[in-house]
Amino acid sequence: MIRKEKLEELKSYIEEFKTIKCEKIDSNNLKTKLQKVYKIFKNEPINKTFIQIDRSKYYLNNGKNIIREKIVKNGSDGSAAIVLPVTKDKNTLLIVEPRVFTKLGVGVGFPAGYIEIGEKPINAAKRELTEETGYVTSDEDIYHLVSFYQDEGCSSAYNHIFLAKNCEKKESQHLDDGEFIKYFECTFEEALELQNLGYITGSNSIIALEKSKSLIYK
Amino acid sequence: MIRKEKLEELKSYIEEFKTIKCEKIDSNNLKTKLQKVYKIFKNEPINKTFIQIDRSKYYLNNGKNIIREKIVKNGSDGSAAIVLPVTKDKNTLLIVEPRVFTKLGVGVGFPAGYIEIGEKPINAAKRELTEETGYVTSDEDIYHLVSFYQDEGCSSAYNHIFLAKNCEKKESQHLDDGEFIKYFECTFEEALELQNLGYITGSNSIIALEKSKSLIYK
Repeated sequence: MIRKEKLEELKSYIEEFKTIKCEKIDSNNLKTKLQKVYKIFKNEPINKTFIQIDRSKYYLNNGKNIIREKIVKNGSDGSAAIVLPVTKDKNTLLIVEPRVFTKLGVGVGFPAGYIEIGEKPINAAKRELTEETGYVTSDEDIYHLVSFYQDEGCSSAYNHIFLAKNCEKKESQHLDDGEFIKYFECTFEEALELQNLGYITGSNSIIALEKSKSLIYK
Repeated sequence: MIRKEKLEELKSYIEEFKTIKCEKIDSNNLKTKLQKVYKIFKNEPINKTFIQIDRSKYYLNNGKNIIREKIVKNGSDGSAAIVLPVTKDKNTLLIVEPRVFTKLGVGVGFPAGYIEIGEKPINAAKRELTEETGYVTSDEDIYHLVSFYQDEGCSSAYNHIFLAKNCEKKESQHLDDGEFIKYFECTFEEALELQNLGYITGSNSIIALEKSKSLIYK
């Protein structure tokens, strides 16, 4: 048990740094004006990006204020669901997909995807598993392992990792246009080795591996 | 050891999805034009954001192409160094700071910060430890634990976690303007409990805790 005086100390710091007010800095208004002016001269459409930046001023409980920029993905937080599948044969499934910003250019990790608006994280996990691999799990076989902020300084993306047991291949992959994914069956020990060999390099998959160790080896 | 045929299978998928060419989609050119047009009418300056988005088309080895957007922080990847400090008394140090995008509004985690251009990750870790807590470690006492991509679908930020032993308080905190940080000394077990209680919620700190368990308990 954490000492009571330590928890009190922590809570006093938290109180001090809480946000009491937030004002949006209206960069969008500026953008809108610019777009209108531009359209007068050229009839060129403005590209909308998938990722947007929101800039706001936050007033803290300590009397200070700070400006922070938030990463927004397609109008939403960008929270993801990640699932570590365990098949009936006690193997796991990895997916391989283009990850153009990494050194290798390709990512190896667990099935994952953005949670849709109004969707429960556990349902997103089940959906992504089936879409990306064609494997299906049941409600009794899927467990929440951990949730965390992916980049808490710049985003409110709050990711959820699930362990799905007794997965069975029941469907074919169904991928979106422009989505290229191969799935790859191996043992849990081989997945751990692929992390050590430098193939699995994403934060989500690393947390999934770490948090399942004790459960898988049971 | 991973089976040879499995490693070959994985490598064939990786080969297929590699990027062979990248073309930047020139949203900046459009922005520049807009800025010029706007300045003709109003002498208002354009706010530069800390976070920018780069949009490019990537040509893959499989003959397909995909458009991806990359998060850029202040012109750089946004790679961070994180340090889990262990003091001479075998305690650890957590930091508390405003994290306006989280539910609590305040984050609890390990000292961390962006790696400066040209800076070695280990030096960034030592610098951030001292700036945020005033504690100092030595070159013989700091160990690399793990590196990983923070958000591999949208960023090339590659973060590095270090364990720093025998940390000693030798300086005062030196924070930047607009940086508000308290540090907090507790046992490693108390830090684990603070994760379970929902105070430590960031991916970096969770990976740091997981990866140090075996080392701290030795």
